Amino acid sequence: MALVVIGGVAAGLSAAARARRVSPHLEIVVLEKGPAISYGACGLPYFVEGRVREASDLIVYTPEYFRKQRNIDVRTGARVVAISHPRREVTLETGARVRYEHLVMATGARCDTRGLGSLPPHVFTLHTLDDATRLRAFLREKQPRNGVVVGAGYIGLEAADALRRNGLRVTVLERSGQLLLRDDEWWTGLVRKQLADYGVELRCGVDVRSLDFPADVVVLAAGFKPNVELAAEAGVEIGRSGAIRTDDRMETNLRGVFAAGDCAEVGHIVTGRPTWIPLGTTANKTGRVAGANAAGGRERFAGIVGTSIVGIFGAGFATTGLTASQARAEGFSPVAVQIEAKSKPGYFGGSKTSVELVADRATRKLLGGSVVGEDGAAGRINVIATALAAGLRVDQFEQLDLAYSPPFSTVWDPLLIAAQQLMKEV
Amino acid sequence: MALVVIGGVAAGLSAAARARRVSPHLEIVVLEKGPAISYGACGLPYFVEGRVREASDLIVYTPEYFRKQRNIDVRTGARVVAISHPRREVTLETGARVRYEHLVMATGARCDTRGLGSLPPHVFTLHTLDDATRLRAFLREKQPRNGVVVGAGYIGLEAADALRRNGLRVTVLERSGQLLLRDDEWWTGLVRKQLADYGVELRCGVDVRSLDFPADVVVLAAGFKPNVELAAEAGVEIGRSGAIRTDDRMETNLRGVFAAGDCAEVGHIVTGRPTWIPLGTTANKTGRVAGANAAGGRERFAGIVGTSIVGIFGAGFATTGLTASQARAEGFSPVAVQIEAKSKPGYFGGSKTSVELVADRATRKLLGGSVVGEDGAAGRINVIATALAAGLRVDQFEQLDLAYSPPFSTVWDPLLIAAQQLMKEV
Repeated sequence: MALVVIGGVAAGLSAAARARRVSPHLEIVVLEKGPAISYGACGLPYFVEGRVREASDLIVYTPEYFRKQRNIDVRTGARVVAISHPRREVTLETGARVRYEHLVMATGARCDTRGLGSLPPHVFTLHTLDDATRLRAFLREKQPRNGVVVGAGYIGLEAADALRRNGLRVTVLERSGQLLLRDDEWWTGLVRKQLADYGVELRCGVDVRSLDFPADVVVLAAGFKPNVELAAEAGVEIGRSGAIRTDDRMETNLRGVFAAGDCAEVGHIVTGRPTWIPLGTTANKTGRVAGANAAGGRERFAGIVGTSIVGIFGAGFATTGLTASQARAEGFSPVAVQIEAKSKPGYFGGSKTSVELVADRATRKLLGGSVVGEDGAAGRINVIATALAAGLRVDQFEQLDLAYSPPFSTVWDPLLIAAQQLMKEV
Repeated sequence: MALVVIGGVAAGLSAAARARRVSPHLEIVVLEKGPAISYGACGLPYFVEGRVREASDLIVYTPEYFRKQRNIDVRTGARVVAISHPRREVTLETGARVRYEHLVMATGARCDTRGLGSLPPHVFTLHTLDDATRLRAFLREKQPRNGVVVGAGYIGLEAADALRRNGLRVTVLERSGQLLLRDDEWWTGLVRKQLADYGVELRCGVDVRSLDFPADVVVLAAGFKPNVELAAEAGVEIGRSGAIRTDDRMETNLRGVFAAGDCAEVGHIVTGRPTWIPLGTTANKTGRVAGANAAGGRERFAGIVGTSIVGIFGAGFATTGLTASQARAEGFSPVAVQIEAKSKPGYFGGSKTSVELVADRATRKLLGGSVVGEDGAAGRINVIATALAAGLRVDQFEQLDLAYSPPFSTVWDPLLIAAQQLMKEV
C-alpha cells in the first residue's frame, strides 16, 4: 500500500523525498498534473525577466532522477479528479485509479481567474513553469510595449518589475489599497515610492471584472486562493482561511491524509492560531513534516511567523510577524515605531534602511517587524523572525549582540536603533 | 559633584551621552588623553586603505558639539595618571585634579609593544586616529613596497588587506596558530585560503621579539590587552581575563566606579561567565549601561554572545558563541557540523557560503556558529547570535521561518541546511 502525493513541486517533492528517508522501502507515488516537476516556482518572474535564461535552469530534479535515485514513482500529466478516502483511492482524469494507505495533498494555490472567462492569448497567469515559458516567448516574439499587471501582491509586483526591465510601460491595477498584502501608510508609502522611482504606474481601487482594457500583455496576479476543491469534495476539513486545516503533524481531519504547502493552513507562532500564508519556504518545511509523518515518522511543525521578502527594483521589502493592525485584530495592544538609518557606512556603499518594529504594550513582547532597503533586508528580517520564534521582548532585543564591522553594518545596527526607539514607547 | 568619564571614544562617550539623558543637570566631564574624540575606531583600517578619504570622515562628534548640544565637558589631551577613590579624585598628567562622585573607566585596550622598545618611524600600531593618520601619511609619502603585519587577529588582517590594496607585498607574522582568534582547522583553512587567494603571505609560529627584519613598513597588531593599570592601581578588581571585573550594572568592586568598553569584562550569555571580548558594539552598549547607572538610573547589561565579523578581501568572516573546543573547555559536550552552500541562486550572483554550527549533545542547545562568505555573512551570523541570546535548541533553529526570494537567498537557507545536518548528530 503506497504513499500517494498529489502535487510535484515544492511541498509534494519535499514530502516524497523525506518519506523515502524515513521509510526506505515504502512505495511512493507522486502525481503531478503538469508536464514538469521540481521547479523553483519563486524563480518564475526572473525567467520572465530573462535573468534566468532557460526554463530548464529552474528545474532542480527530473522524474527520472526521482525514479532512479530515490525509487519514487513520479508521474507527470497525472491530474487527480477525485479522492475516495473510504476506498483509499484517487482517480485520475484518465480514469485510472491509484490506491493509497497515506495521502499527502500538495495541490498548491492559484489566482482565481474564473470570473474572467477563458483568457485571450495576451493574458497570462504566473503559477507554473508552463505559464512562465509562454509569457517569456510572448515577450520575445510579440515585443509588447504596454503591460498591465492585475494585483499588487508579491507575484504582481515581481511581474511588474520583470516587464519593466524588458522595456515595457507597466501599469499595476489593484482592487484594494493593499500593496504587498498590507494597507498601512508607512509600508504602502515605501512601495509606492519604489514603483514611482522606476516608472511603474500604480492604480488602486480598480476592480478588474473584464479584460476589455487596452494592453499588449496582461499578467493576472490577483485573487490568490488555495487549491482545496479536491480535498473538500473528499471530506477534508477546510479552515477559516479557506485552506486545508491541519494539525502540527500536518495531518488533516481524515486520518492518514496530510496536507502541505500552499494549499494548507499552518500554526502562527505569534498568534497561536491557524493561518494561511502561502510561501515556498513553508511549503518545503511542511512538506518534509507531512512526508515524515505519512511514512510512519513522528515530527512536529513548530509553525511560522510569516516571514517574507520580495525584491522590487533592487530593494528588499521584508516583513515578519504581525503588523500593528493585525496585532490589534488579534487582541494585542500594539505599539509600533518606524525608523530610517544607514545600512552601513557611506564609504562602503551603505544605503537607506527603513525598519518597523511592533511590540505588545502589555508584555513588551515583539509581535512583528519590517525591513525595507537595498542591502541587508533579508538578514535583518531574519533576526526579527528568530526573535519572534523565540518570544523575545523588546528589552532583550535591544541588547542583541549583532555583528559589526564597517563593510557590513553600522555599530548600532538599524534594528537596534529601532528597538531603542520602541523601548521609549512600551 | 561630577560624573567623570575616563576615555572619549566609543564606551566613554556612550556613557556620557546616556548619563545626560538620565540626568539632565548632572555635571559630566570626559577626559580623553588623545587629541580627538568620538571617532569610529573600527574604521581606521579603511582610512589607512584610502577608502575613507579624510580622518575627519571618521569623527562623529566634536568636543564643541558635546559642550554646546549636550552640556558635557569634554577635554582632549587630558591624560589621567592616578585615581584616588577614597578622595573621589583623578589626577591628570598636568597635575590638575578633577573630583568625581561617580567614575566611568573607559580606557580601552592596546597592543602591548613594550617588549619592542621605542618604535622606529616605519613601525606603527593601529589603535587611535592619530596612529592611522600617521600610517596613511607614511604610505603616501614613502611609497613602501614591502609590508609586515605582526599578528593575525582582526586588526592585523584588516591592516594586511589595507596594505595589499595599496599595492604592497604583505607578510603576516603570527606567533600562534590562531587566525582571527581561532585555531581550528576548518576556520583557519578558510582564512588561509582567502589570504593566499589575494597574495598575502602568512607565516605562523613566528615570535617577533625584535624589529630587525627587513620591511618598508610594519604594523604591530599582536598582544591586544585591556588598559587596566590605572584602575588596578586604584584598587579596582581585575578579572581572570585581565580586564576590569564588572557586575551586570557595569559597576566595579569600588562603589560608584563603573567600567565599560574594551577595558572591561562582561557576562557571556552562553557560558554564564565573565569574559573579555573587546568589540565596538559591546563598548557602545556597556557604555550606555554604565552611563545610565552612574547617573542614578538602574539598567542591566544582559551580556554578550561574542558576535564578530571581519571583512578580508571582500569576504565576511563571522563568528558567534563558542567554538567546539571552547565549548568543551566550558564543560559542554559539543557537536559541530560544517556545510557549504550557495548564498543565493547563481543567476543572482550567489556565492559559496560556509556555515558551522555547534550544539550541546546533552541539551541540544545551540552553543555557537560561524559563517564565511562574500554575501549575507552578517545577516546569517546575526540569526545565530539571536538564537544564542534566546537559548534556542537545534530542533527549534531548524524550523526558523527565514525569508526567501531568489534575489536574497535559497529556499533552504544555508543556516537551515546546517541545522538539518546538525540534527542528525545531536
